This record gives sequence, C-alpha cells and structure tokens, in this order.
Amino acid sequence: MADEIILLGTWISIFSTRVKIALAEKEVDYEFREEDLSNKSPLLLKANPVNKQIPVLIHNGKPVYESLIIVEYIDEVWNHKSPLLPSDPHQLAQARFWADYVDKKMYIAGRQLMFSTGEAQETVKNDLIGCLKMYIAGRQLMFSTGEAQETVKNDLIGCLKVLEGELGDKPYFGGETFGIVDVALIPNYSFFFAYEQFGNFSIVAECPALVAWVHRCMEKKSVSKHLPDQHKVYDCVLERKKKLEAE
Amino acid sequence: MADEIILLGTWISIFSTRVKIALAEKEVDYEFREEDLSNKSPLLLKANPVNKQIPVLIHNGKPVYESLIIVEYIDEVWNHKSPLLPSDPHQLAQARFWADYVDKKMYIAGRQLMFSTGEAQETVKNDLIGCLKMYIAGRQLMFSTGEAQETVKNDLIGCLKVLEGELGDKPYFGGETFGIVDVALIPNYSFFFAYEQFGNFSIVAECPALVAWVHRCMEKKSVSKHLPDQHKVYDCVLERKKKLEAE
Repeated sequence: MADEIILLGTWISIFSTRVKIALAEKEVDYEFREEDLSNKSPLLLKANPVNKQIPVLIHNGKPVYESLIIVEYIDEVWNHKSPLLPSDPHQLAQARFWADYVDKKMYIAGRQLMFSTGEAQETVKNDLIGCLKMYIAGRQLMFSTGEAQETVKNDLIGCLKVLEGELGDKPYFGGETFGIVDVALIPNYSFFFAYEQFGNFSIVAECPALVAWVHRCMEKKSVSKHLPDQHKVYDCVLERKKKLEAE
Repeated sequence: MADEIILLGTWISIFSTRVKIALAEKEVDYEFREEDLSNKSPLLLKANPVNKQIPVLIHNGKPVYESLIIVEYIDEVWNHKSPLLPSDPHQLAQARFWADYVDKKMYIAGRQLMFSTGEAQETVKNDLIGCLKMYIAGRQLMFSTGEAQETVKNDLIGCLKVLEGELGDKPYFGGETFGIVDVALIPNYSFFFAYEQFGNFSIVAECPALVAWVHRCMEKKSVSKHLPDQHKVYDCVLERKKKLEAE
C-alpha cells in the first residue's frame, strides 16, 4: 500500500518550502494543502493542537511538526537516496548548529529589515543583538523606522557574511552534496529581492560567493521548482506593510 | 588513548545541566570548567566563535554547541548504554518537538515570571503569546511589573500543564525510560522554588503529576547529583533582580 503523505503549509512560508525541497530530493509524492492562516483548517488544528502552526507533514495519519524536525524525519524515513544529514556525529552536530543558526538568526534579521521603521524597535533590537540565538515574529518590529532599519540591514549582511564564511570553498554547506543546512537556508532566497528593495542594498555585491551558492542550488530541480517567485513575495510583503501602516 | 572531554558552562545554567545529566547517563568522565560570562575564557571564545555561548562540549579538541545538539551528539557517540533518543522516526520527531518546546517556551515563561514587573513588557509578552515558538532573553522583560506578571504566571502554569498532559501516565517523557525530553526539562526544576516565590503559587498544587515525575527523575543519580540547589538559585536570581532595580 502506498504511503499517504499530506503537507499542510503556505506557498510563501520558507518553512513549508524547506519541506517541499526535502521531499523533492527524496522523490516522494505527496499532496500539498495550502492553509489560510486566518482561518486554519480543521485538519491543521487537529494535527498540531499544541501550537497550530504550519508546516505539518502528515504521514499515514501521523503528524510531524517543525520544519527542521520534519526534514530530519524525511531523511530518516526515506533513507534510500540523497542523504541530507552527515553520518559522522561531529559533522552532524555542526550541520544541526548551522541549520539552527539559519532558523533563528536569518529569519529575524530578514523580517526586521522588511518591516522595521523607528524607535520602539530599538530596544527590542538591541536585546536581540545581545542575545544572538533568537527567533522572533517580525510583527513586534513593524512600527519602527529609519536609523533602526540601517542597523538591522547591517545585522542581516553580517549574518549572510557569517554564513558565507561557513560555506567557504565548498560547493554546498553539506560539502560535496546538498544537505540540511542548504535545505534550511535556500528558501530565504525567495525573500532576497524584498530584502534588497526595503534595505536598498545588493546582496550579490556584499556576498558574491553566497549568491554563487544560490545559483548552484537553483540548478537543482528540487529547489527551483519549489521556491516562491521573488516578485510575488515582494508584492505580498508590500501589501502587508501597507495594510499595517494604514491601521 | 582515553578521550579528552571538556565541558564549558556555568553552575546555574539549565543548558549546562542538561549536558551534565546526559554525560552522567552515559557514565562518561569529563572535566567541567565554570565560565565567568562577564569575562569569558579564551578557550570559550576560540571554541565557539560564532555565538560565544555556553555550554560547549569539547571532545578531543572538536567543539559542539547548543545544549540539545550536544545531548544528541552524546547519545550518538556513546551509544553503548542509556539511549536518550527513540529509534522509531516518528517517536524521534515527537521527542525532538517536545525538547524544542521546552527549550523555547518554558525558558521564556520562567524568565518572564522571575523578572517581570509592568508595562513595556506587556507588548513584548503579547507578541510572545501570539508567537508560541520563541526564545527570548529575560532581560528585555525585567523592568515591567504587577498585572503583567500575573498573566506571565498563568502562561507558565499553562505551559507546565501542556507538558503534564504530554507526560500522561508514562513514568518518563521518554516512555518507560528516561530520554531527551526528560533531559531537556528536568534542569528547570532548580528554578521551581524561585518561580513559586516570585509568582506566589505552588507548582505541586497546579501540576501534581508533573511533580511526581520530578521526584522520579531525582531518584536517578545522574539527575540529583547535577541539579543546582533551588535555594542557591533563588538567592542568585534575587541578587540579580536587586542589582537591576538599583540601576
């Protein structure tokens, strides 16, 4: 009997995209169901009662939550091809550290950059910088402006440069092959255009080697087929920002 | 040749305590080095240049960071006894989800409770509640008071009750045996007395089954030997709070 695999997510979510890429790497067939986060489906509420968040992978009726946990799950269950995690324990711990770094650090910096404009933010931001490991909803930063945004932009560039340093001369973060850190980071590429527009800077000018890695990843069908279009993402962010400013 | 194992941490850190417990479960000998976080050792700065945080496990010169990643590393390297992670992929994903829940949710609620007193906090807190998955330094919440603290207390109790529900009738979160979620959560017990003092409530009255689990864990030498004393923790928090209020 074939497995029943359902993925609950949204088209714009980098976390959903990670799962799509991992499933594509393993050539696993599944049904994707787009969720409306303002009106979550009964299936989502039932599958993830604790935090009601997407993505959720439902495999033969059993739910798995949290994008990186889902990616590790996929790697363990469909272990016949394209290993996403290294087998050496030290390399595995390093890969998990960097995936976690992307999860907490990159996401924040990007959200801050897109929505930031001012002062109430400054306090929050300084605390964020003091406490590197952090995962924060962009919305508490949305009503601030100007100078703060400049600092945030520099944070994001700093973060990208740290990642570029970790990449080094390797073709992928996973070494010779595409791995979990690649899966964790590449969905952010869909937001690069929005970052550049709101932050008024060029990522390729700042981090050419990282952008070369992006292009390398985009040559993989598992990636290019599943990454949301940059302009569609930008329009969506712009619309949300306008709505917030009008409130 | 025997392995050289050094753990950099602080006595009060729940994250360091997790690693101590995991090493004790595996009966691994190591050297613990207490770090002064206001004056970090050259070894810490060299071992963890990215975020300079404790704990760091240095195994034959190779550093591993992030407490839960370290615990998984320990489980993989010393796999001869006391498995801390389930081998079934779905159970493994569930265990990782709950360890992550403890990491992000519990820690915040506890810090908020101890240091909270007011209004600037309210905004941050509401965002936190809106965004369940979050890991935040207590210090941005320290200058608030009163009503906010009451809400935070209820959050913490809610969080403990969710965990108690997940425990159910099992002796441990790991099922019949002590596992990664137990390792992740039990160090918080050292802060229970401080939570109760600052929040003016009784955890055993709210969550008797969870406290029964605490006592079950404390029967294990790997736990009782490594958990910081509750009163010593309380004194330390009190001193810090006074210092902050005097500033």
